[in-house]
Amino acid sequence: MNDIIALKTSKHLKQSSVIRAMFEEGEKLRRIYGAENVFDFSLGNPDPEPPKAVKNALKRLVSEDKPGAHGYMNNAGYPEVRARVADGINGETGRKLSYRNIIMTCGAGGALNTTLKTILNPGEEVIVFAPFFPEYKFYIDNFGGKIVEVSTSTTTFEPDPDCLERSINSRTKAIILNSPNNPTGVIYSESLLKTIAGVVDKKDRELDTRICIISDEPYSRLVYDNIKLPSVLNIFRNSVVINSFSKSHSLPGERVGYIAVNYEMENAGELIDGLVFSNRILGYVNAPALFQQVVAMSFENVVDSSIYAERRDILYNHLIRLGFSCVKPQGAFYLFPKALIPDDKEFISHALKYNLVLVPGSGFGCPGYFRIAYCMDMKTIENSLAAFSALAEEFH
Amino acid sequence: MNDIIALKTSKHLKQSSVIRAMFEEGEKLRRIYGAENVFDFSLGNPDPEPPKAVKNALKRLVSEDKPGAHGYMNNAGYPEVRARVADGINGETGRKLSYRNIIMTCGAGGALNTTLKTILNPGEEVIVFAPFFPEYKFYIDNFGGKIVEVSTSTTTFEPDPDCLERSINSRTKAIILNSPNNPTGVIYSESLLKTIAGVVDKKDRELDTRICIISDEPYSRLVYDNIKLPSVLNIFRNSVVINSFSKSHSLPGERVGYIAVNYEMENAGELIDGLVFSNRILGYVNAPALFQQVVAMSFENVVDSSIYAERRDILYNHLIRLGFSCVKPQGAFYLFPKALIPDDKEFISHALKYNLVLVPGSGFGCPGYFRIAYCMDMKTIENSLAAFSALAEEFH
Repeated sequence: MNDIIALKTSKHLKQSSVIRAMFEEGEKLRRIYGAENVFDFSLGNPDPEPPKAVKNALKRLVSEDKPGAHGYMNNAGYPEVRARVADGINGETGRKLSYRNIIMTCGAGGALNTTLKTILNPGEEVIVFAPFFPEYKFYIDNFGGKIVEVSTSTTTFEPDPDCLERSINSRTKAIILNSPNNPTGVIYSESLLKTIAGVVDKKDRELDTRICIISDEPYSRLVYDNIKLPSVLNIFRNSVVINSFSKSHSLPGERVGYIAVNYEMENAGELIDGLVFSNRILGYVNAPALFQQVVAMSFENVVDSSIYAERRDILYNHLIRLGFSCVKPQGAFYLFPKALIPDDKEFISHALKYNLVLVPGSGFGCPGYFRIAYCMDMKTIENSLAAFSALAEEFH
Repeated sequence: MNDIIALKTSKHLKQSSVIRAMFEEGEKLRRIYGAENVFDFSLGNPDPEPPKAVKNALKRLVSEDKPGAHGYMNNAGYPEVRARVADGINGETGRKLSYRNIIMTCGAGGALNTTLKTILNPGEEVIVFAPFFPEYKFYIDNFGGKIVEVSTSTTTFEPDPDCLERSINSRTKAIILNSPNNPTGVIYSESLLKTIAGVVDKKDRELDTRICIISDEPYSRLVYDNIKLPSVLNIFRNSVVINSFSKSHSLPGERVGYIAVNYEMENAGELIDGLVFSNRILGYVNAPALFQQVVAMSFENVVDSSIYAERRDILYNHLIRLGFSCVKPQGAFYLFPKALIPDDKEFISHALKYNLVLVPGSGFGCPGYFRIAYCMDMKTIENSLAAFSALAEEFH
């Protein structure tokens, strides 16, 4: 007799999510030792509350109670919200986006699926740079695409342009950029992006293709050390930027994000129509109504990134002192150190003995490393330092 | 040179949505004649505000401002919200669902996509009864399924069990039920559902299959004439019920709905795991956090359906007086009368002359009819009556 669930679903379920699996290990430890004694660095669930301006906007909208505020709107979102987002991007980049170039989405996850659904023909390839956010693999597969993993420098985690060039062929439809990067926290420099743009241009001409750059930037507003994030829209003609308010405004559960389409792209209008259509038929229908208005009213009021920078410094400095090798992240809230033995899974299973919950790098397409998500309270971070010391001692 | 957008997207865009197309016709008329002189029955965007209890719940939650209220939770939703939904269903049906049987989703659109993604192998067939909600076609196609349209009685719009039986084969994976129905407003009786269950059981044994019943019930709480909706979970062993708070609570823009899985199904646990997984990898991640809590607090406080019943009566009685043939709906907020000429598209283009915006039945897989969405203010409905009279006069 046939199964109710599809073969592919069944196969994927058996692989499961390595991040969620580690989170469940953490749950077990919490039950035995108590939450305060477990150092769970597995999930990227931001600990800071939404900024005051976000909460005030929410309060104001709810007390104003405008008729129709919870009704349907255009599948692309409220025009005035889209205009606010366009203005925000224009202010940061000098672009001249109009509200038409913005599609409000159910978070960055919704935006990525909407984009891939719109552009992918079955069998077309999407390049990602390893290590990469593991959901990309599923998002690409959802629409019959094929993921092509291109490894990065093990010393800087920056893509190698030559390696990229060799990976592009006539089936290449898109390249996903993710800077600030999850899991490494690395930011790609303007000059690196320009070199990549040169490679893409060259291959586009050679192969008569138009490779779409999908820049997934949920951490764009969590950058440290006074770094200015280069603008992908200014560098790549055929590009869309994907963002969300999950990290910048600490609203991950409310599912609000957007797609910004570069108006320089040929047939940008057709792509926009396709994105609005896919946003509809994938069942998102529209980004949640009330929180579209909330983020428009509090667009500039992002979480104070110095909170995260402080946590990064404490953990990073401690790990370096212990002899770990680790690229110092300039954005996001992750560290991606090298494991002290070649087998990352074995290494993180040792870490569990010290109530340290980490995620193996192999889950991100980069074995031999591990991820620390430091979006948690300072006290836990400070208390975890002794556990990291004990772990390191075991291997020295 | 290749296009950025996929061939299928491009093809679909050219077909466009007939409902949205009519809505745009309405926009044109509004610009010329003013909104108050156009009778736009094209969109199912509920006009009543959310009930007071819904707004009070929202105000209370926002003023309580609990830490972490906008963060991630389990991909299936908050356990206490899921428990509240399970209790609500149990109270209405006598079932014994636990919170585990409920997955909170981004509306019914999200729930349908999540379910189809979870169960469909490429090429498998999904039966729908025409006329049907046109988005089903896209939702099924999203995951490589094939839609099989089975027509219903033209006098009652009820499915014909013999016709259903002939349409089932070894590739049949699911049947979508939609009662109260969009676009007819018809409710399937308990005895009809039991006959259908008999057909499904028989074919399941014959073909060694397990056909999944997907009962899409967004209008389950908009029923008239003291009708009690029969429970699909009580009648079909292999069944999931999909619902949303868009219509019952007038919250369509906030995207909250759920899937309820029948615990009598073999391997229900595996299906639930698959649904939670698909909800995650389709990029919904979770149903919006705050409105999950809002609907849990106001679960019983649905929109007063007598508002809609009154509108139905005025329009239905007027149409019958004018000589239209129309099944009297007992739920939802649609009328689906027969056009006065065989060509429904020509008929609704005549209606535009009287500033009447209707949707042709061919958009719902049922040519020769048209849909009226009467989820609008009473004044517009009353003012529209003369326009319907003038339209009818033209054809008598």
